[in-house]
Amino acid sequence: MNIKVIAFDADDTLWVNEPYFQETEEKFCELLAPYLSRHTLSQELFKTEIANLRLYGYGIKGYILSMIEAALQISNNTISNEVIAKIIQYGKELLEKPIELLDGVEEVLETLNPKYKIVVATKGDLLDQRRKLHNSGLGKYFHHIEVMSDKQEVDYSDLVKRLDIHPSEFLMIGNSLKSDVLPVLGIGGHAIHIPFHTTWAHEKIDHQVVHENFRDFEKIKDVLYLFQ
Amino acid sequence: MNIKVIAFDADDTLWVNEPYFQETEEKFCELLAPYLSRHTLSQELFKTEIANLRLYGYGIKGYILSMIEAALQISNNTISNEVIAKIIQYGKELLEKPIELLDGVEEVLETLNPKYKIVVATKGDLLDQRRKLHNSGLGKYFHHIEVMSDKQEVDYSDLVKRLDIHPSEFLMIGNSLKSDVLPVLGIGGHAIHIPFHTTWAHEKIDHQVVHENFRDFEKIKDVLYLFQ
Repeated sequence: MNIKVIAFDADDTLWVNEPYFQETEEKFCELLAPYLSRHTLSQELFKTEIANLRLYGYGIKGYILSMIEAALQISNNTISNEVIAKIIQYGKELLEKPIELLDGVEEVLETLNPKYKIVVATKGDLLDQRRKLHNSGLGKYFHHIEVMSDKQEVDYSDLVKRLDIHPSEFLMIGNSLKSDVLPVLGIGGHAIHIPFHTTWAHEKIDHQVVHENFRDFEKIKDVLYLFQ
Repeated sequence: MNIKVIAFDADDTLWVNEPYFQETEEKFCELLAPYLSRHTLSQELFKTEIANLRLYGYGIKGYILSMIEAALQISNNTISNEVIAKIIQYGKELLEKPIELLDGVEEVLETLNPKYKIVVATKGDLLDQRRKLHNSGLGKYFHHIEVMSDKQEVDYSDLVKRLDIHPSEFLMIGNSLKSDVLPVLGIGGHAIHIPFHTTWAHEKIDHQVVHENFRDFEKIKDVLYLFQ
């Protein structure tokens, strides 16, 4: 491995994220409980999110808009204004969640920072991800943050071109096999998977990954074994 | 001038934008006409937008959320679900507006492209701005697109650092004195102002700009006089 740039995914790799979304979804389902079962509500919201993904992209603002749209549809346009105001409020609260660093993250960054160009490569709202990086106190370890509109092969090709390196000099570390691993391997880069205990349905894949440029670790600190 | 990178603002510099927002605001005011005068509605929406700017940042998704929030407030939570659905629909339509290039843009880019590194430097939603650049057909002229969470001095300092150049080697071209000119001059860069016939209230300033690194042109094509 002749790695020049190491990119870290942000949400659920550096800090807690998905549990906050699930907590918000829980509250959304409570608001809509008079209409459908918990499970069906969750499915309807997911369907709306996926249908809007092309237009809204990833991130909390699109999520709030999808919750409102789903609430209108699920209630057949009989939902109260108070519920819509609550959804907006829950969304704003989600945008202001405190940053909870995952175990070992700072030690890994501290060790790798002097030896490699380290960047954040994340999907989501630009302002929101910058705010989180700033509030995390991890900003000093990163050369810069790359907020990507998606994480498909073409997006990683663009990223590698912008970084002015060969794909084989690029290592991505993240919790999503679908977004952080497969497309990176697909363009000839290296990838490390660090699982997080919970994964958004949209990020799940149903097969194993076996590849010479791929490693799977239990905790982020294990990454350091590779760089000793 | 020893310019290495020329950055173009996107909305209302490369293509039409503000008139589409104004058209949407017009439709919003029609929906809310039973509650307040046209002028007061406009003011209330603007107040909501500005109050949400810190959390939502710039871009259409935040704008849709602010319209919904303003509608709830203005109607004292008596607005119908149908109106809220309409607001979401208008927002989605705004996200799918066709790209209308401004006069002379392509000629300017074609001329400058071989001699300079040219980038887009724009605020707004990442996915939306990338989509617009792609649909504009102008992508081939630009080295890359920089979607900025804001356009203050600190944001331009970051940009110049990322581009690995000195501020004096940076030239910004745009339609907003507040966002594209003043902060760039403030960090020691060069700026050219190309006015657009209509400007969002938040982008207006009430004084003249006089600076040795600043030029004001009527049309974007006039920029080429500088580079002959």
